[in-house]
Amino acid sequence: MSKIIRADKYRWDVPLREYKTEGTGFRDITRQTLMGEGAGEERLNFLTRYFEVQPGGYSSLEHHEHPHSVVIIRGEGEVILDDRIEPIGLHDCIYISSHCLHQFHATGNEPLGFLCVVDRQRDRPQLPTEEEIRQLDANEVLRGRYRV
Amino acid sequence: MSKIIRADKYRWDVPLREYKTEGTGFRDITRQTLMGEGAGEERLNFLTRYFEVQPGGYSSLEHHEHPHSVVIIRGEGEVILDDRIEPIGLHDCIYISSHCLHQFHATGNEPLGFLCVVDRQRDRPQLPTEEEIRQLDANEVLRGRYRV
Repeated sequence: MSKIIRADKYRWDVPLREYKTEGTGFRDITRQTLMGEGAGEERLNFLTRYFEVQPGGYSSLEHHEHPHSVVIIRGEGEVILDDRIEPIGLHDCIYISSHCLHQFHATGNEPLGFLCVVDRQRDRPQLPTEEEIRQLDANEVLRGRYRV
Repeated sequence: MSKIIRADKYRWDVPLREYKTEGTGFRDITRQTLMGEGAGEERLNFLTRYFEVQPGGYSSLEHHEHPHSVVIIRGEGEVILDDRIEPIGLHDCIYISSHCLHQFHATGNEPLGFLCVVDRQRDRPQLPTEEEIRQLDANEVLRGRYRV
């Protein structure tokens, strides 16, 4: 059965969840699965989620086999993609390829909100190894910019 | 390789395409595939497309087995979902289930723009049969509202 999930000020009538139920390395971030987890939506092979990062907050620094399709719909920020960090703003799209180490930061005065579509069946995120952290610290661009 | 596809006034640096290369029953609509058709994006099992319908325009009245996940990011309009028609506005999400007959209409003064995510591998859309058109005409809510 088709349905409309109505928006109201960047919130939708679906559960507002903690970003992760375990782990560390993130701050001030919420998640709503807009489509894919509701009743009758089992045919969808992918989930459309909305993440919102409060000013100064950030997502986990992580990588995984499954790619991400991200569209910014609120605010601005920066994204770490392996060895670089890039500014991101309204309606920019970010394709995150397999095992790219990534992290979103909300750098503006309003929250950074983005849609992130993933395969329903996917692998679990992996945190960077000590060796990967050493590589980040050896990178002048990223040193002091990432959060773990 | 991860990448950022930058937005500029509801346009992105990817090809702007005709909505369909064949068929009829649509008006004033463009399509951009934001993620999934670019080089290196083959691992994505789904495509993220942006459709824009100019004021007074509409998409094809059609159905198909594959579901749609839609998020409105510009303007307002109406959507036909089988036997009903509903208003839609900024950030509303529309889950279109298998074989639901659907059509988007831009009813405001600015274009109606929406993201629509679909499986990379999917069936072709089907137009309504004469019998389905008769059913629409028998529905007081939809008579005169749909376009073919």
